[in-house]
Amino acid sequence: MRAEIITIGDELLIGQVVDTNSAWISQRLNECGIEVHQITSVHDDRNHIVQALNEAFTRADLIITTGGLGPTKDDITKHVLCEYFRMKLVESPQVKAHIEQLYASRPEVLNRLTATQWQVPQGATILPNRVGSAPLMVFPMRTKTLVSLPGVPYEMEIGITEQVIPYLRQRFPSLGVVEHRTIMVSGIPESSLAILLSDYEASLPKGLHLAYLPKDGTIRLRLSSYGEVPTQTLEEWIDQLQFIVHNYLIVTDDRPLELHVADALNAHKATLATAESCTGGKLASLLTRHSGSSSFFRGTVVAYSNDVKRDVLGIPEYDLQRFGAVSEPVVRWMAEGVRRITHSDYAIATSGIAGPTGGTKEKPVGTVWIGWATPNGTDAACFQLGKLRDQITDRACQKALIGLLERIR
Amino acid sequence: MRAEIITIGDELLIGQVVDTNSAWISQRLNECGIEVHQITSVHDDRNHIVQALNEAFTRADLIITTGGLGPTKDDITKHVLCEYFRMKLVESPQVKAHIEQLYASRPEVLNRLTATQWQVPQGATILPNRVGSAPLMVFPMRTKTLVSLPGVPYEMEIGITEQVIPYLRQRFPSLGVVEHRTIMVSGIPESSLAILLSDYEASLPKGLHLAYLPKDGTIRLRLSSYGEVPTQTLEEWIDQLQFIVHNYLIVTDDRPLELHVADALNAHKATLATAESCTGGKLASLLTRHSGSSSFFRGTVVAYSNDVKRDVLGIPEYDLQRFGAVSEPVVRWMAEGVRRITHSDYAIATSGIAGPTGGTKEKPVGTVWIGWATPNGTDAACFQLGKLRDQITDRACQKALIGLLERIR
Repeated sequence: MRAEIITIGDELLIGQVVDTNSAWISQRLNECGIEVHQITSVHDDRNHIVQALNEAFTRADLIITTGGLGPTKDDITKHVLCEYFRMKLVESPQVKAHIEQLYASRPEVLNRLTATQWQVPQGATILPNRVGSAPLMVFPMRTKTLVSLPGVPYEMEIGITEQVIPYLRQRFPSLGVVEHRTIMVSGIPESSLAILLSDYEASLPKGLHLAYLPKDGTIRLRLSSYGEVPTQTLEEWIDQLQFIVHNYLIVTDDRPLELHVADALNAHKATLATAESCTGGKLASLLTRHSGSSSFFRGTVVAYSNDVKRDVLGIPEYDLQRFGAVSEPVVRWMAEGVRRITHSDYAIATSGIAGPTGGTKEKPVGTVWIGWATPNGTDAACFQLGKLRDQITDRACQKALIGLLERIR
Repeated sequence: MRAEIITIGDELLIGQVVDTNSAWISQRLNECGIEVHQITSVHDDRNHIVQALNEAFTRADLIITTGGLGPTKDDITKHVLCEYFRMKLVESPQVKAHIEQLYASRPEVLNRLTATQWQVPQGATILPNRVGSAPLMVFPMRTKTLVSLPGVPYEMEIGITEQVIPYLRQRFPSLGVVEHRTIMVSGIPESSLAILLSDYEASLPKGLHLAYLPKDGTIRLRLSSYGEVPTQTLEEWIDQLQFIVHNYLIVTDDRPLELHVADALNAHKATLATAESCTGGKLASLLTRHSGSSSFFRGTVVAYSNDVKRDVLGIPEYDLQRFGAVSEPVVRWMAEGVRRITHSDYAIATSGIAGPTGGTKEKPVGTVWIGWATPNGTDAACFQLGKLRDQITDRACQKALIGLLERIR
């Protein structure tokens, strides 16, 4: 089955809101084997919505729209759909009872604008919206289907998960499953990787597709199966892929690296600290953004000034002067210093030139030293990570995590 | 002028990547008075791209495409555009020299796939891509224009800012200017602010529009002038707006708060450190993401474990046990401790329950204590900052910076 998503709202087209709904919906539809063919964002405008519906119905079996279902003047989706499907609005006692119940627990009063929300198109299937007042509407169109959902992300997500997917699975019992497997590699440029994999790609059977997704100095390889490819075939081809790239293989799923670090540390009941100069707390921020990080993460010293490197981390003034802050000896001292003062098993240190100023001929912008202190000793490596500040620090974090994973395993 | 954006890439349609490019491009085009009519995401598929181009050219004068310009097999945009505009690929000596120079400073070799990047469509205008190997291509189509950009956000952003907008302004001298003025307020809910501003909004002249942009517990108010409104009128109305909201006014431009903090500290030749528990390095990361932060920023201790709070920051074990880590005494100790060990003039400390676990009846998820240590003494405040982990830590950073600004001024 082929679907299209139409997101409706002026705020999307003036750039005030990023459309995060479409990616989320695509993932959920993919899991049922429904391919998303196109995503289209249009204005809150009758003619524009009708044009997008006409075009989408020529290509897709299922259309999901989001947005334009609020009670205010600029929200017109429900009225346009009524006109499109030649239905009239009628009062729904179920929706009315639900909205009255919702407002019973809210401080604000149920006003006349909200009361328009229980007017629904006669002939459409209304699915309950547990967390909001906008109805979830399903319109039949011969063998095709349109589902209209609110644009507020959590209302949309709960609606898709609890109502729309079960509805579709019941109505179309033959819905299949599109499967994805992702692995991450590092240390090889995308173009060299493509050359390494050219024979592999050429021999992939129909229904399997390989994609390259570079990010922050790593590359995720995603193998997807469409149609009639059995799971076992997908597994065999992902095994072969791992074999070919094993020199560069970092992890074998799609989760962020910091979660793999968390798993590896927890498996060893080990703890971690970071000493950060150029990454300025970004590495700590990554490691602590997921709940549960306190099980392994002890703390960080962001040593932006040399005084802090000396006084808090205990780096000898002599080494700072002789080698400079961006150097192998200093980054090793930083890692060992933070490991010692936080009583951690592992420590990572970063020191580099994030730019745009501060580069020299010997140490250009993008030069980053990373040090790892472990129960088995300390070492360090130097990287050239690009030219832009955010890019350099993002890549430094990924290099630091990859290096740690290699040293824990 | 009317534009459409076409984003190209399978990763968008399986939901692996959220399209953030379109909102960013829409903002930049809006600033030149170019309306974005539609955003369409399509597959890396020849027929699909051609269909989207045909449809967009019937509606728009300017089409911006992103994505599909990498050197690998799945990237086909350049070839499809060559076919569409009936051009052939030729070697560009300028692009070749640029790519060779890019690779001169990289460890990896320039291989045959990368070499395809200097093949460009004969007749297209090639704008330089300062930070990548994919060319920025401009295709004329009678009175209409298509611009093809890479999908990597920072390459696209630099290309739009440094190349595409100047190119469009030169080619279409009549492009308008939409002016925006933004101020930031905090400490008042959006609905109360709207009531406070209802008379003001009702009396705004035609061509001036007020927008509310709530984010991380602050609200930005943006006044925009479209069409024939003189700059002086915009300035007069922004003055009046500042007068009405002066009790809640934080800053009077659109720059992020950390840059205002940098200005205030630099003006006093003062230095700053942070001690972070729940924010986990996010505050340090914000403060150091802009170049020049080493002039005032000395460092951070992320004290995730109580041991680190005690051993590195010198917080008495007794207070940690008696009051708990999320408490006024501990957050004051943290601020004073990090101020002392880093020899800073100012220090900020955060300690809170970021959730989803760890909340209690007395200290529910979202409770955050923030402390400020200054040359004039130390104080602290407690906030309730929501229910979601990222939301809580983002809001805590903003509250911490607002509090610091108030204490420096």
